[in-house]
Order: sequence, then structure tokens, then C-alpha cells
Amino acid sequence: MSGNLHNVGEDHPPTVFFLSDYGLADEFVGVVHAVAHRLVPSVVVVDLTHGLPPFDVRAGAAALERSVPHLGPGCVLAVVDPGVGGSRRGVAVQAADGRWFVAPDNGLVLPAVEACGGVRAAVALTKPDGVPATFDGRDVFAPAAAALAAGEGPEGLGAPVPADELVRLAPLPPPAVETGPDGRRLLRTEVAWVDRFGNVQLGVPGTEGPPLAAGGAPPAPEATVRIFELDGGATPDGALEPGPVAQFRVRRVPTFGALATGEVGLLSDANGRLAVVVREGSAAMVTGAVEGAAVELEW
Amino acid sequence: MSGNLHNVGEDHPPTVFFLSDYGLADEFVGVVHAVAHRLVPSVVVVDLTHGLPPFDVRAGAAALERSVPHLGPGCVLAVVDPGVGGSRRGVAVQAADGRWFVAPDNGLVLPAVEACGGVRAAVALTKPDGVPATFDGRDVFAPAAAALAAGEGPEGLGAPVPADELVRLAPLPPPAVETGPDGRRLLRTEVAWVDRFGNVQLGVPGTEGPPLAAGGAPPAPEATVRIFELDGGATPDGALEPGPVAQFRVRRVPTFGALATGEVGLLSDANGRLAVVVREGSAAMVTGAVEGAAVELEW
Amino acid sequence: MSGNLHNVGEDHPPTVFFLSDYGLADEFVGVVHAVAHRLVPSVVVVDLTHGLPPFDVRAGAAALERSVPHLGPGCVLAVVDPGVGGSRRGVAVQAADGRWFVAPDNGLVLPAVEACGGVRAAVALTKPDGVPATFDGRDVFAPAAAALAAGEGPEGLGAPVPADELVRLAPLPPPAVETGPDGRRLLRTEVAWVDRFGNVQLGVPGTEGPPLAAGGAPPAPEATVRIFELDGGATPDGALEPGPVAQFRVRRVPTFGALATGEVGLLSDANGRLAVVVREGSAAMVTGAVEGAAVELEW
Repeated sequence: MSGNLHNVGEDHPPTVFFLSDYGLADEFVGVVHAVAHRLVPSVVVVDLTHGLPPFDVRAGAAALERSVPHLGPGCVLAVVDPGVGGSRRGVAVQAADGRWFVAPDNGLVLPAVEACGGVRAAVALTKPDGVPATFDGRDVFAPAAAALAAGEGPEGLGAPVPADELVRLAPLPPPAVETGPDGRRLLRTEVAWVDRFGNVQLGVPGTEGPPLAAGGAPPAPEATVRIFELDGGATPDGALEPGPVAQFRVRRVPTFGALATGEVGLLSDANGRLAVVVREGSAAMVTGAVEGAAVELEW
Repeated sequence: MSGNLHNVGEDHPPTVFFLSDYGLADEFVGVVHAVAHRLVPSVVVVDLTHGLPPFDVRAGAAALERSVPHLGPGCVLAVVDPGVGGSRRGVAVQAADGRWFVAPDNGLVLPAVEACGGVRAAVALTKPDGVPATFDGRDVFAPAAAALAAGEGPEGLGAPVPADELVRLAPLPPPAVETGPDGRRLLRTEVAWVDRFGNVQLGVPGTEGPPLAAGGAPPAPEATVRIFELDGGATPDGALEPGPVAQFRVRRVPTFGALATGEVGLLSDANGRLAVVVREGSAAMVTGAVEGAAVELEW
Repeated sequence: MSGNLHNVGEDHPPTVFFLSDYGLADEFVGVVHAVAHRLVPSVVVVDLTHGLPPFDVRAGAAALERSVPHLGPGCVLAVVDPGVGGSRRGVAVQAADGRWFVAPDNGLVLPAVEACGGVRAAVALTKPDGVPATFDGRDVFAPAAAALAAGEGPEGLGAPVPADELVRLAPLPPPAVETGPDGRRLLRTEVAWVDRFGNVQLGVPGTEGPPLAAGGAPPAPEATVRIFELDGGATPDGALEPGPVAQFRVRRVPTFGALATGEVGLLSDANGRLAVVVREGSAAMVTGAVEGAAVELEW
């Protein structure tokens, strides 16, 4: 609706989009902001989130992948870094659409880079002499991100790295959908993310799962959701345990508004992922789902 | 003291004051910031708070009403939205003093609008085709707030709505003050807010309650505070339970400094509300008060 | 690496570095931002942290002291204020390097001021008539910090205060190192800070403690760390309890990367302090260390 405002007659200031697992209890995030402002006084630092679970590279990659379609011009600074102080290198990676990403070379930004068209270029960040080994966000990544946001080229940051030498996260298995002899379909996936409101995002796109319920009068529930215990669902010999911890009959709906208050349902969420939700309630609390738990859908 | 700085020789940039129940663990807040910056590169987004209890429209309305007297020029963006994805509409509401508020039409901003002189104009936000149904903060409200902050008129945002069609929160009952045959006064109210420091704000203005203690030597406590259990205080047949969970003899004082360290007292707080406090301590921990609990003052 | 960007051809906007114990659940921080923007529209407010433990002046002083070497030009606004509403005064203190600090006069900023060369000047902030007594961050400190950040002189803020009248925190005892008859050394200190990642910073500089392990093949652990219960470690008659709650054999290493995953070690951290750490893990969880607990190192 305001598309006419986009970049018309107004230049974008140098912008850094900052995402980390630093949390907000300590001064880590604030000091990184201060360093960016010290080096590039006109910089705007947009905090995407700093509430990622500590060291959870996959959660960080997913949050960044969800965010990147909505970002304007600017450099991404992403720090989830279990290998800090070790031999992992820092990198600046440019996507095909021109956007730069500064991060540890542990796969954190690659899914977002793929969403921006894939890797165009990458450099390994040179670590200045004499800086401490344990706060690269402050000492290495923030200066690099500020410089790239300000329009500097990557030449001063380090040596080029071939795209195929960048560390990538192991791919998740594709959703397994089986069709039984009775024509019923069974999809096995897992809980990928539980957000603040208790929405339970599954590890499959919103195009998967049962079809939308027919319009008109509310139809009867036509799908079953089963939530398993975290790391449960399998016995030591690999056989599935007999039962899940929670099971619900649900409808697939287009929006929360098609559910009754408190009803459990399935929908394609704002990130295009399939999610178990409760209207005006917490699906996580109602179903007991936690991140990583196995989930079955049958319809 | 610095009033001479106010708006003298310096223009205000487009400003959005942003308040929500999104929390900071996820990237919701960051993505809304990114959208505002993408559409209006010079925008300044001031986060009022994102720690409102999920779906608590009344808590959000109270926090915004407390904040609005302190804001400079700019558009308010407020999102506490249990009805997202349903039939509730989004609105932009202009107050009599010219300030715009963008929010779901659920009563969230009306108390603050009243504090700014009441409703001058309102429009129902048109939802662009093809956007997901579940993240209106990102897809509908942020673009509208950025456009209004940048000085655009509301014409492109949607159709006018009469002020009397806006949803309003049900008013709270006025404080009940009774005078007994012995001349003692009894005020019944509730805990409206417990802040980070454990200050217990009551649901009545600071002009209510016992008078200030006389100056000079510390007087004896002259009022009694009784705190009841949440949702307690009444039996199934409606009669009051015999006793509260905590009872204190307190003084009404002008400031924390008039209390001894650790003493429970009553004062008119920085928002002009009556509050139960403890000097250098948490009144919530000392008294067991939680938000919504019934409170009696007798003096 | 980007030192050439520093302040070359680009002026710094008025900047306030803001640190408090306000937390983010309430609107306190947001309202202070709003006041600064209202008074100085071009101000940039950098949040260092607002997650300090409520009323913990020493924790705030330490966080600010850790942060200040990384800040560019701008005024520090620091609020940890157990005495709000009492007789303590507010102050603006200028360090020898020219930086201003606005805070309650309770010792909060003095360690950072010392790190900036000591006190050059100070004024006691005049409190405007008619403002509430309980939110000086909003009503007194934010206006003063915004004015100083914008380049105003301190003359309008209040009367000069001699440096030696400023309140200072009681100094901590120096680390006690004893050498036994067998040549073993024993250092007694305490846990000064546990950060989000569970790193356990001790109350001694990184130059203290056992020497770095020799290079080459990983050497055997050569130091012992003992962690005591909080407020434990001493019997009522003052004698030490026989044993700590946790004891570990550790190596002193230069970086996390020199440890095996999950190994407990000692290193000089990013702030130049000695710390007990676990590679890719939480030393606090592994050792049970909490802030304030007594610690012994023997080597």
C-alpha cells in the first residue's frame, strides 16, 4: 500500500541487520551497536532478534531465512558462534542480489543467502592482531558489517573464498508422506519452532498436509495431529513407541479467524510454513509440543 | 530544563512509537522495524515496550496511556491482537492533537487517543491482496504507520470510519469508597500493574486513598492495605471470603525517600496512580500482590 | 581493519549510551528514548543493556566499565537507582577525555570515569519543580543526557560539585594469593559475573592465575578450581568449611578453541578478566557457580 514510498527520492542510510544469540541481559548487543556507530556514525542498526537459543545455529539460520524477504538495503550481521575462539573462520558472503552477510563460517547465513539467489562472492575475514579471541562479534564481525553497510568493498576485509568451501548445515530430511491401503495419508515431521504465542511451526512448507477444509458451514475435523515426546517416539531397538503424548482432531483452515476460540487447527503461517495453532491461545501449551518433538499428521 | 531544545531549529525525522506483545525472543519486532525502514529509510522507530502479556489488550492500553504524554511528534504503532486472522479490522485513528495511532480495532489505543483530546478521524485499513492472514503487524500496520509518520495522508490507507464505530474497552468500575459509621473509609480496587521493581500500581488515581501523612516526625501508620488472592476474595455464592492473604499497616508518603528501607507504603507514582511500594524492595514480593488481585484500603 | 572509517568526513550525531536496570517488560526504557528524541530529534540512543539486576549498582558499574572502551563520542546515561525518591542527588560527571556521564550520585559511573582518565568536572542536577519523585530517568536524567549529547554545556543543569564529594563504591579487596611451603599457589576470589553463555568471570584480571599451558601436545591439567556455595564456605565462627561444592582440574588456555568440546578451562576473556569457561557449554551449569560465590584457584 505504501510501495510508492520505497526508495523514492530518499537514500537509504548505511544499515546493519543484526541477529544473534547474545540475549539482552548482558551488554554484548549494546557494545556491538556502539562499535558500529563509532566506525560509521550514520549507521542504522536494526535488531532482528537476539533471543536465539545459545549456540543454536540451525534456529538462527531459520530466523534469518524467515526475515530476509522483508529487509531493505543493508548488510546482515549474524552471530551464533559455538566455535568462537577456535579454528572456524569468519566470513563475509555476498548473495546474488548484492546483499552482504557477515557471520562465522558455520552455515548460519547460507539458507538466507540461497533465498537471495545464492552465493556471488565470499571472503574470509582477517582477524586484526592483538584482539581478544572470544568476542569476534565486537572485534571482527561488527567492523566488517559496518564497513560493508557503508559501501566499502570487501577487498580490505580478507582473502576470497570459493563458494563451495563455505560450511553448510546438513540438510534436513524431506517430509515423509506415506499413503496407506485405505487411502489415508501419513506425514511425519517435527516441531521446528515454537514462537512467543505458542504457535507450533512444523518442519514442512505450508503446501504440505491436508487440504483446506471446504467452505460454507464448518466441516467436521478431517485430520489427526499426533505430538510425541521430545526424543521419544522410538524405543532403543528403533521401533516406534505405541502412542504419542497428545492427539487432536483438527481442521485445516486459511486463517485463525476460521477457528473457534480455543480450537486447535492447522494453517499455513505468515512464513509459509505449516503450523499447529490455537485461536487466541497457545498451541504449545494445549498440545505439549516442544521444539524438536516428532509430529505425525494423518488425513 | 532543556525545554529550549524542543523542536527549535531542528526538524523531527519521521518517527514511529512501537508497542506490542510480540516479545523479543522471536524476530517479529525486528522484521517490523525492517519493513518500516525499507519503506521510509529515514524513519526512527522508538520501541515503547514489547513485553506486554500476550493478547492482553487492557495491559497494552494502559502502558500506551502512561507513555503518550511523553512522546514527541510521530505515529504510534500498537499491536496486541488476539483477533488477528479473524474479522476484526485494522484502523488508523487520529487524535484531536493530530497524532496518528495504527492498531487493530479492539480498543487498544482509544484510552491514549482520549488522553490526546479524543478522536478526530479514523480509517479502516485496506488489507493488500495476497498477504498472509497472520502477521498484520508486518504486512498491514507497519506500512501504514511508516506512511503516516512520513507525512502521507490517510486517504490511501482505507475508508473513513465514524468515531462511534470504533471498538472501545469496557470501562472499569469506578473506585468504590464507603464510609463506615465510625467515620473510617474503605476503598476497594485491584492491582492494575506490577512493574519490574515490584511496585504495585492500583486501579485508582493518585488522588484517591488516604491523605498524605503530616510532616515533621514520622507519624504512626494510619492506613491498612489488604491484598486478596487472585480471583479469590469471593465464595461461590458471592460473599466475600473472611480474610485477605496479606495485610499491612502503612503510611501515605510523597516519595520513596520518606519511607524507611524495606517499609511498605502508599504513594502517588510517576504515572499519577496510587501504588503500594517498598523502599529499595519489591512490594509484590513482600505483599504477594499479583495483577488483577483485589485490594482494600482502609483509613 | 576499518579504522579509516572512524570519524573521517562524517560527523557523529548526538549520541546517548543508555544502561539501566529497568528491564524491557515495562515501558520505562521506551519512554526515556521518547523523551530524548522529543528534546533532541536527531539523537541516537544506543542501549548498552537494561538487564542489570534491579538495584545492583556494582553490577551496573562493572558492565559500564567493560563497555566504555568501545564507545564512540556521546554521553552516557546510566540508571541503577535504589535511592530514587530519596535524598541522593543526580549528577553529570565529565571525564578527563571529555565524555559526560549522567547518573544518580551513587558510584555507578565512577569506575568508567576512572577508565576515561578520572573526573574533570561534575554538576549536581537541579530537579525541575513539579516533576514526580519516582522516575528521574525520564524526568531528570534523560533531559540532561540529551542536552549534553547535543553539545550544550553543563551550566544550565546545576551547580558544580567537587570531585571528591562524589559518592564512590567501596573498593573490592585485592586478590589474595598465597604460596604454600610446597611452592603451590592459592588464589582466593569470587564470581564477579555469569554471562548469558554461562561463562564465569572471576574478580581478578586476566593477568592473574596459573600461567598459560605450554604449546604443542595438550598438557595435563595443571590447576584446580574450587567453587563454593554462595555465602557458604565459612562456618559461623569464621573457619572455612571443609569442602567446596565443585572442584575441577583445568588447563589455562589462550582461547576456547584450545579446549576440547565440553572441557572446563581458564582463560583471559574479552574484557581482560580471568574466567572459568566450558567450550560450547555453560561453565555456570557445569560448575554450579553463581555470582558472588567464593572461588579458589590452586596451581
